[in-house]
Amino acid sequence: MSTRRLVVIGGDAAGGSAASQARKRQPDLEVVMFERGRATSYSACGIPYWISGTVDSEARLVARTPEQHRAAGIDVRMRTEVVGIDTDKGVVHWRDLDAGTEGTEPYDDLVYATGSVPMRPPVEGIDAEGVYGVQVLDDGVALRAELDSGRVGKVVVVGGGYIGLEIAEACRMRGLEVTVVDKSATPVGTFDPDVGRFIADGIRSEGVELVLCDGVAGIDVDRGGRARAVVTESGRELPADLVVLGLGVRPNVRLAKEAGIPLGTSGGVAVDQRMRTQVPGVWAAGDCVESVHRLSKQRVVVALGTHANKQGRVAGINVGGGYATFPGVIGTAITKICTVEAARTGLSEREAEDAGYSFVTAAVDSTTTAGYMPNASPIRVKMIAERRSGRLLGAQVVGEEGAAKRVDALAICIWNEMTVDEVLSLDLSYAPPFAPVWDPVLIAARKAFEAVEADTRS
Amino acid sequence: MSTRRLVVIGGDAAGGSAASQARKRQPDLEVVMFERGRATSYSACGIPYWISGTVDSEARLVARTPEQHRAAGIDVRMRTEVVGIDTDKGVVHWRDLDAGTEGTEPYDDLVYATGSVPMRPPVEGIDAEGVYGVQVLDDGVALRAELDSGRVGKVVVVGGGYIGLEIAEACRMRGLEVTVVDKSATPVGTFDPDVGRFIADGIRSEGVELVLCDGVAGIDVDRGGRARAVVTESGRELPADLVVLGLGVRPNVRLAKEAGIPLGTSGGVAVDQRMRTQVPGVWAAGDCVESVHRLSKQRVVVALGTHANKQGRVAGINVGGGYATFPGVIGTAITKICTVEAARTGLSEREAEDAGYSFVTAAVDSTTTAGYMPNASPIRVKMIAERRSGRLLGAQVVGEEGAAKRVDALAICIWNEMTVDEVLSLDLSYAPPFAPVWDPVLIAARKAFEAVEADTRS
Repeated sequence: MSTRRLVVIGGDAAGGSAASQARKRQPDLEVVMFERGRATSYSACGIPYWISGTVDSEARLVARTPEQHRAAGIDVRMRTEVVGIDTDKGVVHWRDLDAGTEGTEPYDDLVYATGSVPMRPPVEGIDAEGVYGVQVLDDGVALRAELDSGRVGKVVVVGGGYIGLEIAEACRMRGLEVTVVDKSATPVGTFDPDVGRFIADGIRSEGVELVLCDGVAGIDVDRGGRARAVVTESGRELPADLVVLGLGVRPNVRLAKEAGIPLGTSGGVAVDQRMRTQVPGVWAAGDCVESVHRLSKQRVVVALGTHANKQGRVAGINVGGGYATFPGVIGTAITKICTVEAARTGLSEREAEDAGYSFVTAAVDSTTTAGYMPNASPIRVKMIAERRSGRLLGAQVVGEEGAAKRVDALAICIWNEMTVDEVLSLDLSYAPPFAPVWDPVLIAARKAFEAVEADTRS
Repeated sequence: MSTRRLVVIGGDAAGGSAASQARKRQPDLEVVMFERGRATSYSACGIPYWISGTVDSEARLVARTPEQHRAAGIDVRMRTEVVGIDTDKGVVHWRDLDAGTEGTEPYDDLVYATGSVPMRPPVEGIDAEGVYGVQVLDDGVALRAELDSGRVGKVVVVGGGYIGLEIAEACRMRGLEVTVVDKSATPVGTFDPDVGRFIADGIRSEGVELVLCDGVAGIDVDRGGRARAVVTESGRELPADLVVLGLGVRPNVRLAKEAGIPLGTSGGVAVDQRMRTQVPGVWAAGDCVESVHRLSKQRVVVALGTHANKQGRVAGINVGGGYATFPGVIGTAITKICTVEAARTGLSEREAEDAGYSFVTAAVDSTTTAGYMPNASPIRVKMIAERRSGRLLGAQVVGEEGAAKRVDALAICIWNEMTVDEVLSLDLSYAPPFAPVWDPVLIAARKAFEAVEADTRS
């Protein structure tokens, strides 16, 4: 039997995990991994913390260097972009970005892990100098070099999602004047507005200006071709030495599309539970694929390192002859903006409506420890429960230190399709330094249960 | 229809909750609540923090004063002990401890919520002056008065369980010399020894002396009848100006026994899911009852405020004509000893053995945030998984700030009978300030899954 060969396109979380797992399971598998950037297996989510100086070196964001991958037997081709896939012949075409050389590489199995690309609004000036996305580590390097140059005093962040706010905070920590522009009435639109307001208050209290209910109409550019202001749809001109795009990302599917690898309804590469695409021998994982949302039953694209790692692992195990599945997502996310911690899981009110659920909501304000402890921090837990059945559909947690990670408990309740009545009986941990005797999660469940009962009676 | 009357014995968590809930559901219900102490609805778990000075006043530990209960329509009889129950006649006999008067009170429903009593080893000198339990708020008041007197320099704590260690830390924070004596090789015997060692290291690092594998043979008493030293079974004499008993508690069932209210196999009052005893019209809740352990299927007594509150609520709702159940416990507990946080849920190794399970274990050392964040704290997650099925039977978490409360996620996995394979696919929250991209819970599940697979193959 001749040696089988796996080709992996993309050397970050999903690609790196797939390569490692496949090789681990099948030590005689030849694995070639193409990465067009300068780093492998790094934490893109960590970029804001490196920009702020919280993390002292770019290298610390790298979980596994090309050398470490090579030591594990993976043939890593850095700065080499795959420019085409021929699924009939089972080869990929590549180009070495530094040497300018090109070539082809045959595969028996292919893992497509190309990640995502930042959204760029189609407005004038968007490609000007001084406008940055923060998508790959190389973007972070470029952005930080700008900030380190000392030429930047004013930053405008376009988009108030997770990354937008995290970058805004990072720039603020460096002493810069920062404005965030967002179309919604509250930032981080994946939260319900009542929770989003806490996030808005938190970032404002650190001196970041929020321009809400307003979008970007264009970027004003100076004679040298460099951005000098963001012009909003309402006509405001926001001076900027630097513009950061934080509008989110979309799956990087260009190559897949060209190669005839089918996409799903959400625009990501369509995969089954084992991360197989609809083309034999071709697998996909990470930000470029779509996943099943376990509550809405819809296909969704969720670009998050934790999913990318899991999906890459699943693809790698399956390529390596094992059996593993990725059972879908429920929309869990968490962020820390200045002193505010916020997290969500399941469906937001709008998402629940869109999915056709009828529901009640309940929110409680409590503390992270017994109320009498000196370090008690505020925590608000909001629950969305299906009418009549009382099934927990979504939850949001916002507060200060020690608040948000508690969302995991709620994520697991949702994953197991628990009703709020069941949730309120859970045997959760209690001691004064960790919770009031009625844990905030349990109080919220009580209140949600009362709302379900009141709704059923009415 | 004449007015119905509920009598509640005990005015702390369970009794107070039962009284409030019943009255809330049935506003014309007469509710009489007897409390032999000086406080109602207080946090016994908070006593160590008041003793240390972390909490500045005893009053802050009280969730609901007698006056607040009275304002809600409950006839509270303070410092009044119920000395007998006549279930045939439906009356209780009471004695006013201050006035010395006695009387009877008829009931239609009775809630027995007498709590627990501290274990006292039957050794010489155990009843001497200067030997304290820390069970009710009045004990805390007496203990703190001793410490405030300035006469105490050396404290010996007998028993290294949760309360024992918490009191030891509190005394140490007050600058006292503190020794803890415990029969086990590691303190807090409900943790596996490998986890218990972290707790031992934590408390030793604060200067508390631990005398392990040694029990108490007697208390040496001076001529004035006051404890002056603890003598251990190995013959050591530990000088003590004050002795604190932290040997745990047993259910306070004397009255129930005398009245013929059946106890269960564990020694607590036997109740069904609705908190009904086997005597019609008599309910029970809190530290004095036994609960079903959902994993071992055995009846157990777990004295914990969170259960007492829930059980009291359930009893009260049912007395008030509603329907509620208490579905059992899974042994979740949490503690903070100096800088060490530790928590457990489900079965420990020994408990799993006793319950007849065959299992594998896995433990991982990780961090509470992404490893590159400057505030990353150590966290160890240990899992116990059933052989072959891979069902999660127990978990223990130990670490520093931000570690232990994560046990709730594991408790909910166990509650829902998840396998470690299922756990490792969970959609838990990820961002660098909150977890590594592979959450410690997920890494532990991966490792436990690998252990289950390896065991199945072998």
